[in-house]
Amino acid sequence: MTTQTGHTNAIAASRVMGTEVYNSEGEHIGEIEDVMLEKSSNQIMYAVIGFGGFLGIGEKYHAVPWSALDYVPDQGGYVVPFSKEMLQNAPSHSIEELTGNNGLNARNASYSYYNQTPYW
Amino acid sequence: MTTQTGHTNAIAASRVMGTEVYNSEGEHIGEIEDVMLEKSSNQIMYAVIGFGGFLGIGEKYHAVPWSALDYVPDQGGYVVPFSKEMLQNAPSHSIEELTGNNGLNARNASYSYYNQTPYW
Repeated sequence: MTTQTGHTNAIAASRVMGTEVYNSEGEHIGEIEDVMLEKSSNQIMYAVIGFGGFLGIGEKYHAVPWSALDYVPDQGGYVVPFSKEMLQNAPSHSIEELTGNNGLNARNASYSYYNQTPYW
Repeated sequence: MTTQTGHTNAIAASRVMGTEVYNSEGEHIGEIEDVMLEKSSNQIMYAVIGFGGFLGIGEKYHAVPWSALDYVPDQGGYVVPFSKEMLQNAPSHSIEELTGNNGLNARNASYSYYNQTPYW
């Protein structure tokens, strides 16, 4: 996925977090809560999108491959190329299911469900 | 740098930020301010370590390769395998020099100075 063109842009994780996310129909589906990183490689595992819940209670999260996020300035947020229905049926996780060694399962389920080419 | 052992651990960017950083002599050198990500690949560009300055004014930053950070639970922070002198002489940047297309220069300078194998 690395480009050799010099068009590589740096984006700070702190700026990614809190950015709104929209589906392919332009509907708001949530926001980026966090970005999960691999300790033992140089790779971004996935973005964590939060949806539902109230003040963090009962909130569920999607793990979405980084490569699926496309920043669209006109919308002021990321657009993922997935329909509302696909996102509603996507694997969702508690925060515990996304961290430590559990993160690997969430990552694999995400890449499989969204049919993204694994980076590993 | 990707391991094939299944020991890949997920760490949230939000938890990395704010973690203290020590040099090879155990001296405190600063803390992780941010993690810079590549928009157009799946790679972590570098960690941003803040040092000096006051309330963010005049603060300078080091770009340090992710692979150089080793989390040491006993110290409650990351240890980088660099001496105090090496860190003092390291390239430092303003926040503007670390973002957007400038990030690539900072990345290249960092990997070269710290003699880390490029991931790209």
